Amino acid sequence: MPQSPVGPRDSSRTPRFAGAASFALLPLLETLGSADIAVAGVPFDSGVSYRPGARFGPSHVRESSRLLRPYNPAQDIAPFAVQQVADAGDIVANPFDLDEAMEQVYQGAKQLLTRADRLAVIGGDHTIAYPLLRAAAEKHGPVAVLHADAHLDTWDTYFGVPLTHGTPFRRASEDGFIDLTASAHLGIRGPLYGKGDLTEDAALGFQITSSEFIEEHGVPAAITRLKQRLAGKPVYISVDIDVLDPAHAPGTGTPEAGGLTSRELLRIIRSLSDQQIVGVDVVEVSPAYDHAQLTGIAAAHVLYELISAMGAEKARPAR
Amino acid sequence: MPQSPVGPRDSSRTPRFAGAASFALLPLLETLGSADIAVAGVPFDSGVSYRPGARFGPSHVRESSRLLRPYNPAQDIAPFAVQQVADAGDIVANPFDLDEAMEQVYQGAKQLLTRADRLAVIGGDHTIAYPLLRAAAEKHGPVAVLHADAHLDTWDTYFGVPLTHGTPFRRASEDGFIDLTASAHLGIRGPLYGKGDLTEDAALGFQITSSEFIEEHGVPAAITRLKQRLAGKPVYISVDIDVLDPAHAPGTGTPEAGGLTSRELLRIIRSLSDQQIVGVDVVEVSPAYDHAQLTGIAAAHVLYELISAMGAEKARPAR
Amino acid sequence: MPQSPVGPRDSSRTPRFAGAASFALLPLLETLGSADIAVAGVPFDSGVSYRPGARFGPSHVRESSRLLRPYNPAQDIAPFAVQQVADAGDIVANPFDLDEAMEQVYQGAKQLLTRADRLAVIGGDHTIAYPLLRAAAEKHGPVAVLHADAHLDTWDTYFGVPLTHGTPFRRASEDGFIDLTASAHLGIRGPLYGKGDLTEDAALGFQITSSEFIEEHGVPAAITRLKQRLAGKPVYISVDIDVLDPAHAPGTGTPEAGGLTSRELLRIIRSLSDQQIVGVDVVEVSPAYDHAQLTGIAAAHVLYELISAMGAEKARPAR
Amino acid sequence: MPQSPVGPRDSSRTPRFAGAASFALLPLLETLGSADIAVAGVPFDSGVSYRPGARFGPSHVRESSRLLRPYNPAQDIAPFAVQQVADAGDIVANPFDLDEAMEQVYQGAKQLLTRADRLAVIGGDHTIAYPLLRAAAEKHGPVAVLHADAHLDTWDTYFGVPLTHGTPFRRASEDGFIDLTASAHLGIRGPLYGKGDLTEDAALGFQITSSEFIEEHGVPAAITRLKQRLAGKPVYISVDIDVLDPAHAPGTGTPEAGGLTSRELLRIIRSLSDQQIVGVDVVEVSPAYDHAQLTGIAAAHVLYELISAMGAEKARPAR
Amino acid sequence: MPQSPVGPRDSSRTPRFAGAASFALLPLLETLGSADIAVAGVPFDSGVSYRPGARFGPSHVRESSRLLRPYNPAQDIAPFAVQQVADAGDIVANPFDLDEAMEQVYQGAKQLLTRADRLAVIGGDHTIAYPLLRAAAEKHGPVAVLHADAHLDTWDTYFGVPLTHGTPFRRASEDGFIDLTASAHLGIRGPLYGKGDLTEDAALGFQITSSEFIEEHGVPAAITRLKQRLAGKPVYISVDIDVLDPAHAPGTGTPEAGGLTSRELLRIIRSLSDQQIVGVDVVEVSPAYDHAQLTGIAAAHVLYELISAMGAEKARPAR
Amino acid sequence: MPQSPVGPRDSSRTPRFAGAASFALLPLLETLGSADIAVAGVPFDSGVSYRPGARFGPSHVRESSRLLRPYNPAQDIAPFAVQQVADAGDIVANPFDLDEAMEQVYQGAKQLLTRADRLAVIGGDHTIAYPLLRAAAEKHGPVAVLHADAHLDTWDTYFGVPLTHGTPFRRASEDGFIDLTASAHLGIRGPLYGKGDLTEDAALGFQITSSEFIEEHGVPAAITRLKQRLAGKPVYISVDIDVLDPAHAPGTGTPEAGGLTSRELLRIIRSLSDQQIVGVDVVEVSPAYDHAQLTGIAAAHVLYELISAMGAEKARPAR
Repeated sequence: MPQSPVGPRDSSRTPRFAGAASFALLPLLETLGSADIAVAGVPFDSGVSYRPGARFGPSHVRESSRLLRPYNPAQDIAPFAVQQVADAGDIVANPFDLDEAMEQVYQGAKQLLTRADRLAVIGGDHTIAYPLLRAAAEKHGPVAVLHADAHLDTWDTYFGVPLTHGTPFRRASEDGFIDLTASAHLGIRGPLYGKGDLTEDAALGFQITSSEFIEEHGVPAAITRLKQRLAGKPVYISVDIDVLDPAHAPGTGTPEAGGLTSRELLRIIRSLSDQQIVGVDVVEVSPAYDHAQLTGIAAAHVLYELISAMGAEKARPAR
Repeated sequence: MPQSPVGPRDSSRTPRFAGAASFALLPLLETLGSADIAVAGVPFDSGVSYRPGARFGPSHVRESSRLLRPYNPAQDIAPFAVQQVADAGDIVANPFDLDEAMEQVYQGAKQLLTRADRLAVIGGDHTIAYPLLRAAAEKHGPVAVLHADAHLDTWDTYFGVPLTHGTPFRRASEDGFIDLTASAHLGIRGPLYGKGDLTEDAALGFQITSSEFIEEHGVPAAITRLKQRLAGKPVYISVDIDVLDPAHAPGTGTPEAGGLTSRELLRIIRSLSDQQIVGVDVVEVSPAYDHAQLTGIAAAHVLYELISAMGAEKARPAR
Repeated sequence: MPQSPVGPRDSSRTPRFAGAASFALLPLLETLGSADIAVAGVPFDSGVSYRPGARFGPSHVRESSRLLRPYNPAQDIAPFAVQQVADAGDIVANPFDLDEAMEQVYQGAKQLLTRADRLAVIGGDHTIAYPLLRAAAEKHGPVAVLHADAHLDTWDTYFGVPLTHGTPFRRASEDGFIDLTASAHLGIRGPLYGKGDLTEDAALGFQITSSEFIEEHGVPAAITRLKQRLAGKPVYISVDIDVLDPAHAPGTGTPEAGGLTSRELLRIIRSLSDQQIVGVDVVEVSPAYDHAQLTGIAAAHVLYELISAMGAEKARPAR
Repeated sequence: MPQSPVGPRDSSRTPRFAGAASFALLPLLETLGSADIAVAGVPFDSGVSYRPGARFGPSHVRESSRLLRPYNPAQDIAPFAVQQVADAGDIVANPFDLDEAMEQVYQGAKQLLTRADRLAVIGGDHTIAYPLLRAAAEKHGPVAVLHADAHLDTWDTYFGVPLTHGTPFRRASEDGFIDLTASAHLGIRGPLYGKGDLTEDAALGFQITSSEFIEEHGVPAAITRLKQRLAGKPVYISVDIDVLDPAHAPGTGTPEAGGLTSRELLRIIRSLSDQQIVGVDVVEVSPAYDHAQLTGIAAAHVLYELISAMGAEKARPAR
Repeated sequence: MPQSPVGPRDSSRTPRFAGAASFALLPLLETLGSADIAVAGVPFDSGVSYRPGARFGPSHVRESSRLLRPYNPAQDIAPFAVQQVADAGDIVANPFDLDEAMEQVYQGAKQLLTRADRLAVIGGDHTIAYPLLRAAAEKHGPVAVLHADAHLDTWDTYFGVPLTHGTPFRRASEDGFIDLTASAHLGIRGPLYGKGDLTEDAALGFQITSSEFIEEHGVPAAITRLKQRLAGKPVYISVDIDVLDPAHAPGTGTPEAGGLTSRELLRIIRSLSDQQIVGVDVVEVSPAYDHAQLTGIAAAHVLYELISAMGAEKARPAR
Repeated sequence: MPQSPVGPRDSSRTPRFAGAASFALLPLLETLGSADIAVAGVPFDSGVSYRPGARFGPSHVRESSRLLRPYNPAQDIAPFAVQQVADAGDIVANPFDLDEAMEQVYQGAKQLLTRADRLAVIGGDHTIAYPLLRAAAEKHGPVAVLHADAHLDTWDTYFGVPLTHGTPFRRASEDGFIDLTASAHLGIRGPLYGKGDLTEDAALGFQITSSEFIEEHGVPAAITRLKQRLAGKPVYISVDIDVLDPAHAPGTGTPEAGGLTSRELLRIIRSLSDQQIVGVDVVEVSPAYDHAQLTGIAAAHVLYELISAMGAEKARPAR
């Protein structure tokens, strides 16, 4: 890795709308060889139960990230200067075979982790959280998961299939990738199949901070609750963009009314900059349903804020 | 009616995107014969003063309701299990003759009420609230109206025509369908024709909880105010989807900036589950202006929450 | 079957925008019990290699078919009067398992054929042509296939998977469902993987009438060529909506510039009304990419014209 | 009227996207006092049987006309220089009362004809052709109608209502506004209610040049046929934009596949520049279904070409 | 000027969708000769660094303003009755020459100020704030600027060019048009080029009330902070519509997640009705990225609320 | 350069929707060092007189080119195998200074021509044809230009500015870059400023084959006419995507009704494969006005067909 991180393309010389759209116009991992954080896409959506299209998510989020600039005033950090962040391109997955695809994503993530300390992944549908957690757990042991989503994603099976975008956290729990004493859902809302969905989820060990909780108690209360839950553990943050209200993220597969604003979600993420974040993903952006890159921009900002939070540790003066 | 309510189509065997789109994939009233609640569409928009298109509202809201699942955790109720809810199809109305159409809606509602205790109607434009209130008042006497809308809809006439989508609550007031000691507007905002609009509305007996009130005093204060107003009366809830901000409901005819979020509206509806709700409607969804079913999903969730609130009484243990 | 066919809903009494959207507002097979032609949807798109979304095709094409009226002047036939046509709803298929899904489509088609003489299917992606041809061949022996498409769909495998939307006609050829002395592609255009694609396709026995052929020689020459090819055989017509130019059918998964106009395609279909058509499908309508139902309306008209052509035999005076 | 016609705003000094959008950036009739041709909008769509929205047609077509320049090379004429053309604004019509609205349109047209020799009207739905023909016939006697449309619009009633957008030419025939020895439909296609639609239409005296005729015999044959029909009579040209294929005009209320291209329609109109055209309208542009002003631009060009054809007589050297 | 202000077109006689779209259907300055407030468009976007299109902003905002009615209940004022407001049309600017354009806007504004006391301008991109501030400062001396925006717009140069939409407030500061003891940014958020952006901005004298401030401290705290800053000075309010969250204003050039709701912004503007407002603008509406006039309606409401605030002084009883 | 050309990414291993979108998924020039043909983008639109947005054209056309496969059956050529084609990324141009930008494009093109024999450029607006022709003429002497466009683009000035997207061919003619004995416009249509536009254009030496010519005489006649004109000269082909009808290319800045179909244009390009083509560009794709990549796909296919035609010489057996 170079002494001083290589930053994004200089937009005072090349307009932001010119050139290829790496994430935030960052350099490619292929060029640099290694990095602190590798941003990787997983263009895969064969695990989707309703509106498909998240296979175009990585390309869309990158296109929507062209406006991201290098200094984040809200966290007072230059996330691409305190650590080397690079765009690693896409992990390829077979669109016609769920099992093979999940193995490919796992292998792809594992391989990337030989060249980068941590991954920041752009989905793709939420199925990919399973192999990503598998790779993270191999490196860090069971991780505390902060799962931001409208849905629990701990259902058992769909159509008899064990691993789809509605089940990754159940499978990951069963397989020991998750520290269930320290994991939490954020932003859950909307109808369920039955009350059993909640009891089964609780049995797995997740704590829920619902969208209704935030409406009633406010964001600071939610932050306190989340930080108590995650405290002291290696944290993996998985953001299904449908945690946002459909007004803020129409371009997704299973939208539910009554969600978070992008301002609330960004604030919550910022509050986690004191956590030890070992990996992140932002999933379920389905561009065919987006408008004017509304959802893509939200997803790009969320990933930028997550990467900033991951860099905060390095930015802090040694104690 | 069957002993145990017939629920929605089983989505673990039939994907949610398959089959015809009855509301929430519920069974048809035609098949069941009778029900506690009949969901009916009124595809009519000839009373619209600005953007038309709400005639396609019923079909659009049903298509947008495919993701609704049978258990509502926010109210802890299974709304389709504690009561039989069925889709009654559409009430037909002549698009070229307002008077005949209003009579048709009234007759259609009246007839449905012989097979269902209560109606949950999908508009169509707001003109239809008049015949629906007429049918409700015939059964229950003058009803307390909770009217969620950006607009008062108590104007006198448009172009000399007494009944359009801007006047139903004035006409219903004059004709004695509304209990004006207990009725309220929610979410009112935006410019009016003159200060007289407010004084005339007040003279009719409505109480206003404006969108600005919510911005300044918060949702809990609004809920308290509404519940005091409605207390103890049979309540009819009429939701013009434009009560939501255009960001949450672009697909409507007369959008006004500065509205409610879907999260706020759903919360307010939930708070009314202790009311005696005798009928509900959700109107003014104009699909040609919608994007990615954003408005349709909001409307479907609102109707789902209203039906949940209507079922709460049955779900409560006997006292 | 009733003596006289039951026709579409009477639109002089119920506006076309009211009520549930069966195809062309036809009665349901479920109600009638049997029919000459069953219109069935197959909401399945897990075989798609590029833009997904055809799982919403059946619902979208039905919604887009509301304007279809009962008399077809271009063929001088009342297609719903000379034969009983009914909407059979959707054949359900597992979105997560291609093999199981194909078996489900085959079983569904087979079962429908016990209640209807012929099927008119709305896709779904083109993978479904394989099980539909299997069911057709079981009843009629190998069928002459007229395959209208921008693409050959006789590729061998994608990602090692034998049956996807790029391969159904190869698999069906290998399995003997197709009469390869009498089958033809119509409207082929756009880049291929290599010249071998053409030679392999020719080896399978297909004749190509390309989009360039039509541009150069005109529609009448294409019709002559097709009719010579199909003559005297039981014909199965499979229309991938991307045979139309993207201007006429933007809402599809793999659009190619330089295609047919809807007027040309409708004319060609009409010319086939003297054929013995044993089954038809219209596939690859992906609504998320459609605009103002442009593609849905084209697909609905194509299916209407196909059903008219299927009825022409019955409408002809005995010789 | 001024000696030399006042032309459009000078676009070499004011960008075409600046300023208010009168048709083709022409001066207002209000300013000029009188004109040879008055362009007037009729923002009315309460006669629509399917997708409404044509009430926004006049504003949309004007916005879409900003690119029209003053010289028409295809007809070698400067249509705004050989005759004074002015934008007369909109004729107001009551959206809630069809009868009153039709009287208002008639009175509005009649009044405009005191200040302009001829009208070029932007709809609005096709119902308005009735009062416009009434006004034209009062001035010129029964007129030969060239009616370009996908639909006959000679149906009898909808829902018992005699005058809607499906019936204006029947009512106008019955009331003697049309010279039925010289009138014609152009571009008819798509399903009808029954064969009787054709026989009744023929009984009224219309000649049909269908879209299929053009596909089979070509545009020159259609032109010959039309010119023979219209020859020597005062001609009124009424263009329903749905005469174009939905690919060319998605923004309309009752689209039918298989229509004309804009190039074909413009060519046909040009061929009529030797006719005595006494009035024209372009109707049924419904902006909510348009994309990128595609339909608006087509409509604006059609009207421009019609106005050019109306000016050809003046441009011809005296014989 | 007339004794009693001429108000908007009477919408009880002319439907709101009819006629030309002056702002709020107000009379033209051209007709009236003079006014208290002139609403002017500046269709110019050649200073844009990312998504262009704001050149169509004035036309779009006017079209989106048709629903504005004459009485504003939130401020209890009839803004078009207490003062004469008139639509002055557009100020023309050369799209190919930034310097000439800025001079044209300045001259245009200056000229308008001879006929109107104050201007309310619809952009156009934010570059135009520079010449507008120049004209305002000439009349009032250095003005306190309230600048609502996601971005600081005090950058130095882009591509070596001193005046673009990212730099107007820096240039205006340097040229002495701004009272930097009393100016403020509102709603700032999103990534910057570096920490220096903040220090340079502070050095210029601006105070920042960021979007994060509002999320954390609430709108009332922001209002207090702003009013303390502006107190007692002549205030110019410049609103970049991207101060709103992209959910509320997708139709803009450089959207940033995490913004204000329209309800919050309208509330803040209302709170400023006790200020001495000498000029306002609303800029950066880019219609090609808008949906269903969502952004246009927000911008029109913002301008309406600003004009109401400007009229409040006149509406107050003399003290 | 490698012995055997490096082709596009292997789509049987990497799905077409994965990875960065170089044109047709081709390798980068940066990687290869040199090539026969360099595909370069010019993201610049500051010369646009109406709808801007073509600055996003290169990125959009590349995203829309993912489906292009390596063998072109219509020309029986594998365009990426007979010659090395590589994606050279974008030529950067200052968006705020037309003169500097034109110099940058010229220098960028010149520099690329040191590493590639010929350029295939994706615009950007049509202004860029001037510097591209300058670079081509430097290498080849004055070139025969085939200019496919709805507009002449030989106007003199706009707003006093000599070089904008309406004037490049006039400036290039004056500066001697064009062989005016052998240059031609194709597809011209729509209104002009005056008859003088035609005479001035003719004086420059261009021959016009208008869209009306094609409608009347057919494509083969147009091809004959063009080939006679171009015969034996080095040819530069410049395609403004608005040569296509707005139905085929809505995503452009100055659309005109009555244009070519994509099928016609592709056929004409194919016919030119026996020409000595020294450079090509495809310009004026404005993505914000596109739908479902309709315009992007057309542009990508046009460029693919042009590159195929450029390779035909190499593919021909030696004579």
